[in-house]
Amino acid sequence: MTVSDPSVSTRRAAAQLTSDQATDLLSGPLLPDSDLTEPFPASQKVYLGGTLHPQVRVPARRVTLSPTLERLGDLTRSVPNAALLLPDTSGPFTDAAQTVDLRRGLVTARPWLADHAALDALPGRCRPELDRDGPLPFPQVPAPRRARSGQAVTQLQAARRGQITPEMEFVAIREALRQEAAFDLTHQHPGQGFGAATPREITPEFVRAEVARGRAVIPANINHPELEPTVIGRNFRVKVNANIGTSIVTSSIQEEVGKAVWATRWGADTIMDLSTGRFIHQTREWIVRNSAVPVGTVPIYQALEKVGGVAEDLTWDVYRDTLIEQAEQGVDYFTVHAGVRLAHLPLTVRRRTGIVSRGGSILAKWCLAHHRENFLHTHFAEICEIMAAYDVTFSLGDGLRPGSVEDANDAAQFAELGTLGELTRVAWDHGVQTMIEGPGHVPMQLIRENMTRQLDVCQEAPFYTLGPLTTDIAPGYDHITSAIGAAQIAWYGTAMLCYVTPKEHLGLPDRQDVRDGVIAYRIAAHAADLAKGHPGAQARDNAISRARFEFRWQDQFNLALDPFRARELHDESLPAEAAKTAHFCSMCGPQFCSMKLSHELRTPEILAGLEAKAQEFRAHGSEVYLPRPEQSGEERA
Amino acid sequence: MTVSDPSVSTRRAAAQLTSDQATDLLSGPLLPDSDLTEPFPASQKVYLGGTLHPQVRVPARRVTLSPTLERLGDLTRSVPNAALLLPDTSGPFTDAAQTVDLRRGLVTARPWLADHAALDALPGRCRPELDRDGPLPFPQVPAPRRARSGQAVTQLQAARRGQITPEMEFVAIREALRQEAAFDLTHQHPGQGFGAATPREITPEFVRAEVARGRAVIPANINHPELEPTVIGRNFRVKVNANIGTSIVTSSIQEEVGKAVWATRWGADTIMDLSTGRFIHQTREWIVRNSAVPVGTVPIYQALEKVGGVAEDLTWDVYRDTLIEQAEQGVDYFTVHAGVRLAHLPLTVRRRTGIVSRGGSILAKWCLAHHRENFLHTHFAEICEIMAAYDVTFSLGDGLRPGSVEDANDAAQFAELGTLGELTRVAWDHGVQTMIEGPGHVPMQLIRENMTRQLDVCQEAPFYTLGPLTTDIAPGYDHITSAIGAAQIAWYGTAMLCYVTPKEHLGLPDRQDVRDGVIAYRIAAHAADLAKGHPGAQARDNAISRARFEFRWQDQFNLALDPFRARELHDESLPAEAAKTAHFCSMCGPQFCSMKLSHELRTPEILAGLEAKAQEFRAHGSEVYLPRPEQSGEERA
Repeated sequence: MTVSDPSVSTRRAAAQLTSDQATDLLSGPLLPDSDLTEPFPASQKVYLGGTLHPQVRVPARRVTLSPTLERLGDLTRSVPNAALLLPDTSGPFTDAAQTVDLRRGLVTARPWLADHAALDALPGRCRPELDRDGPLPFPQVPAPRRARSGQAVTQLQAARRGQITPEMEFVAIREALRQEAAFDLTHQHPGQGFGAATPREITPEFVRAEVARGRAVIPANINHPELEPTVIGRNFRVKVNANIGTSIVTSSIQEEVGKAVWATRWGADTIMDLSTGRFIHQTREWIVRNSAVPVGTVPIYQALEKVGGVAEDLTWDVYRDTLIEQAEQGVDYFTVHAGVRLAHLPLTVRRRTGIVSRGGSILAKWCLAHHRENFLHTHFAEICEIMAAYDVTFSLGDGLRPGSVEDANDAAQFAELGTLGELTRVAWDHGVQTMIEGPGHVPMQLIRENMTRQLDVCQEAPFYTLGPLTTDIAPGYDHITSAIGAAQIAWYGTAMLCYVTPKEHLGLPDRQDVRDGVIAYRIAAHAADLAKGHPGAQARDNAISRARFEFRWQDQFNLALDPFRARELHDESLPAEAAKTAHFCSMCGPQFCSMKLSHELRTPEILAGLEAKAQEFRAHGSEVYLPRPEQSGEERA
Repeated sequence: MTVSDPSVSTRRAAAQLTSDQATDLLSGPLLPDSDLTEPFPASQKVYLGGTLHPQVRVPARRVTLSPTLERLGDLTRSVPNAALLLPDTSGPFTDAAQTVDLRRGLVTARPWLADHAALDALPGRCRPELDRDGPLPFPQVPAPRRARSGQAVTQLQAARRGQITPEMEFVAIREALRQEAAFDLTHQHPGQGFGAATPREITPEFVRAEVARGRAVIPANINHPELEPTVIGRNFRVKVNANIGTSIVTSSIQEEVGKAVWATRWGADTIMDLSTGRFIHQTREWIVRNSAVPVGTVPIYQALEKVGGVAEDLTWDVYRDTLIEQAEQGVDYFTVHAGVRLAHLPLTVRRRTGIVSRGGSILAKWCLAHHRENFLHTHFAEICEIMAAYDVTFSLGDGLRPGSVEDANDAAQFAELGTLGELTRVAWDHGVQTMIEGPGHVPMQLIRENMTRQLDVCQEAPFYTLGPLTTDIAPGYDHITSAIGAAQIAWYGTAMLCYVTPKEHLGLPDRQDVRDGVIAYRIAAHAADLAKGHPGAQARDNAISRARFEFRWQDQFNLALDPFRARELHDESLPAEAAKTAHFCSMCGPQFCSMKLSHELRTPEILAGLEAKAQEFRAHGSEVYLPRPEQSGEERA
C-alpha cells in the first residue's frame, strides 16, 4: 500500500476520531464496547479440555434452566432441568474471567503452536513498514513464522500422514460439546442427508479422515494463535460466515473491529475482512489479533489498492507479495478467483447483470486488457506453495457467479465451476486445504443442481455459498430472500453459508444489519442441520419447546438464538416481571391460551383416560379411521 | 356477546381514546392515518375493465420506470423502459382519486351484487342489538341478504353449472393484469411444478374450471360488496394471509382496523380477524366494511366469548347463531375445527407441546368434558347449509397441528388431516368452497410429506399453511424460520400462506411486525411462484435486476416489494440525491464496483470481440473445456 504522505493520512484518520478515542488508541488498555462483552442471560462460559491434547480448551456456553413445576393434585413438585451446552463463537469477550484489551489482542488459544518443531521463526515481516505506516498501528505485532523448508504443516498434510492434530481434537469436541451421550435420538426425526454421512459421535479420528479426504477443512493459519478452530465440511454442523470490512465510502477501523466481534457474538463461525478502503493492512491486523474465529480475505482487493485501483496494472509480483504479507499476519483463508478464465468471459456477454463478483470483475478486466489468461490461474501452483507454508486454506472464488435470478446456472457459472474442480485437485496435490465458493442468486428449482454439480466436480470439497437469494425483488430484505435459499442448499450439502444482510445491494451493513444477517443465517444453518438429521441437532429445539409448553418464559428466552431480542419483544406487550412466569401471553390472553388449555387437559384423571385410549389405539393396530359415531339426538336438539 | 352494562363498557373504551378521537368516531368523516394512504413512489392506481362483465374493475399498481441511458461513443441515447403493472391489494386507500371515510366504509367493488336475483334481502340482522351495543358502533350497518330458498349462489355452484361469474373474470384478470402478451418466457427459467398445471394465459374459463373442480376458491361473501376478489389455488399465484385481531390483553378497535389496512398495503391478499377481546362483533364490522380483501374469522372464538370463556359451556346453538351473525356481516371464510375428533385426542398425550391451536384446544376441552364427539363434526352438514347461503368459504382448521419440530407429522396431525379430507367431500356435496389449513412447525425434510398427503387426501382442495416454522430455536425471528418453510411448501403446492410475524410466541404484533411478516411472506410466495415457473413471475425480477445493473437506483427502489425500506437503507449510507444516480454504492465504492467494471467491459470494441468469441464457442458445440493454454514464460518471470 502506497501512502504518499503518512502525516496527511494520519491527520485525516485522526480527524474521524474524537480526541479521547485517539488517545485511547495510542496508550493504555482499549476495552471493547460493553455491548460486545455483555454476558448472555443465565449463561456461563465453560471450556472442555482435550484428552489427546491436554492443551486443547474448547469454549462453550452453558445455559442454566429453571426447574419444571409439576402439579400433583394440590402439591407442586419442582423437577430440575439439566443445563444445556451451546456452541459459542464469541471468544474471550464473553468470558467473565478475562478482560480483553484490544490493543494487546486476544491471548493464545493454540499454545501448542509455540514450540511447533516444523515452523521457522522469520526475522521479521516481509513489509514491516506497513505495520507502522498509517494512523492506527497495532502496538505489538507478533513475529511471523512459516513452515521450515521441506516440512508439511497443513492440517491436510498432517491428516494424510495419520496425525491427529490439536486442532482436529479441538473441532471434534466443539461439534457436539461432549453431549453425545445425552442425545435422545428417539426424540429426533430421521434426517434426509443427500449423501451426508455424519456418525453418531464425532471423534478426532473422524475429523482427521474427513480432512485427509478433502471433505472438510480447518482454516487455521499458523500465525493466528488467537484462533479457536472450527471445522467446515458437509458432515459437520453447517457453519456461517459474516463479511465485514471498510470501504472507501464509509466506515472506520474501530467500527470494523467492533463489527467483527459483534458478528461472532451472534454466532458467526468465521469472518471475512473485505476492506477496500485505505489502511487495510492495519485494519486487518486489529481484526486478526482480536479474532477468535478464522479470518478470510480476498487478497486481490489489497493488491488493487497497491496499484492505485487500476485493474490493468495488477501484476503477479504485487499479488504474491500481498499473499505473503497477509499470510504472515495470520489470515486463515484466501478467496482466490483463479477460475475466472479468459475463455469464460464471452459467456457473460448476454447476461442480465454481467459479472457481479468484485474479484471476478477485476480479473476479467485484467484478462481483457491484456488479452491473457488470468494470472491467478497461470501462477496457481506458486500460490499453493505460499499457502501451504502457512496453512492458509483456499476458498476458490466464484468470480462468475450469477447476480440475478436470470443468470443462475448459466454456462459462465458452470464453466468456472469446472475450472474450480480442476484447481481443487491441484491444491490438494500441494497439500493445501480447499473449499469452493458458490452463488449468489438462484431460484429454488435451480438450487439443487448447484450442489450436485459442485459435489461431483469438486469431489466433495466443502461448498461455501453466498445465500443464494431466491428472488431479486426484495432489496432491504435480502437476508430473508437468501436465508430461504441458504437453508435449502445447506440441507443439500453446503458446508458453510456466507451471510447476506438487509443492506445487500443498498449499502454497507451497520451493527443491526450484521446481527440480523448472522441470526437469519444461524436459522438457515440450523434448519439444515435438523433436515440432514445431524445427531443431536434437535436437542435445542426440544428444550426450548418444552420450556414454551411449560411457560418457563425465561428459559425460552435464554435458549433462543437471540435471547435479548426474544425478551425485548415479549416486553413490548407484557413488560411486567410477573408476565415472565404467566401461563399465557398477550397473543391470546389467558382464556384463549391453547397451551394453558392443553395443560388443563392433563389432569391425572384425563391423562389416565387418554393413555388408556392411546393403548387401545395401539392395540388395534394404530388404525385412525374408526367407524364414525352416529350423531347424538340430544346434541342436535 | 353479552355486555351486561353497555354504559360501563362505553365509558371503559372511551377512556382508552383521547377526547378528539372519541368525537371523531361519533361524527364527521374519519380519515385513515396518512401512513395508510401514502402513495407508492412512481406509482399510479389503475383499473382494468372486464369484457364479459363490464362492471368488473380490477385494481393494479402501475410503476413508471426511468429510461436507460445508452452510451454510444461520446453520445448518450435515452431509451424508454415500459411501465410495469404490479398486483395491488391495498384497496381504495392508495387511490388518489378516492377519499376513504372509515365511518362509511369502502364503496362497492362488486356492483353486480345489488340486483342479484337469487338473493333475498332480510328484514334485518339476526342480532341487531350487537350492532348497537358497545363503545364503537359502526354508523350505518348494511342490510343483510342471503340465498333465496333453493337458490345455489356459491362460486362453486355457479362454476359447476358452467357460469362464469363477475368474480371469476375479476380474479382471472387480477392474476396477470393482462400482461401475458409481454411475458418473455425465453427470459424465465422453466419451473418445477410438482404437478401444478398453470396455463400460459389464465382465462375466466380456466378459473371457472378450477373452482368447479374444487382446486381453487374465491372467498367472497355476498354480504361483502366492498371486496376486490382474489383466487386461491395451486395453479394461481401463491397468496398470503395476515392475521390481525384484538386480544383481551392489549390492542384496540382503531388499532386493529388500521392494522388490517396496513397489512394489505404491504401485500396481504386476505386477512383474518382473530379478535378474542370484548366487542368483537363491532371490531369485525369496522374491519369488513373497510376491507377490500377477503376477511376470515374463527367463529368458535366469539362463541366462547358468548359463554363466558368456559369451553364446556359451548353449545351448537350458540355456535350456529355466531356463524349466521358473522355471515350476515360479510365474513368471507370461516375456520372450522371440525376435524378435531374425540378419537384423535389420545394421540396428543405424548406430544411435546400438546395442542397449540386455540380452536383445537377449546374443542378438545369440550369433547373431553362431555366425552362426546366434537359438535362441529356432528353438525357439519348444517354448518355447510349456513355457509352455502352466504357463500362463505370453509377453511377447515388444523386444530391438531404440531406446535414444535418434535410433534411434526405425527399420528394426531395426520389423523385430523384424514378427517379433513372426508369433510372436504361433504362440503363440496353442499356446494361450499373449501380450503384446508396446514401446519405449523415442521423441519424441512418433513415438509414435502405434508403437501403430498394433503393433495391426496383432500383431492387438491387448496392448502393454506401457517409457515411452517423449520426450527423452534429463534423466537423473535419466526417470520424467518417460517418463511424458509413457507417458500418450500408453497413450491410443492400450497395455495395460500398464513404469515408469521417476529412476535410469534412472544406477543401481539404491532405495525412493524405486521409489515415484516407480510413482506417475509410475499418473498416466500414469490420465490415459490418462480420455482413453479408461474408464467410471467420472473418479469419483476428481470426488471429490477436490469435496473440494478444500469444503476437506475430509483427504479430499483420503486420495483421493490417495499420501496420505502429499500430507499431508507440506501439513504443510511448515501443520503445525497446524487447517489441515486451514482454508478456505485457504499458497499464497494466506485473503484470496486463489479457492475461498474462490468460496464467498462462493455465498450463496443470489447463487446464485438467477446461476441465473436461467443459465436465461436457456440460454433464449437458450446464446449467449455478447451485445452489449457501453456503458462506464459514472461508472466511467470
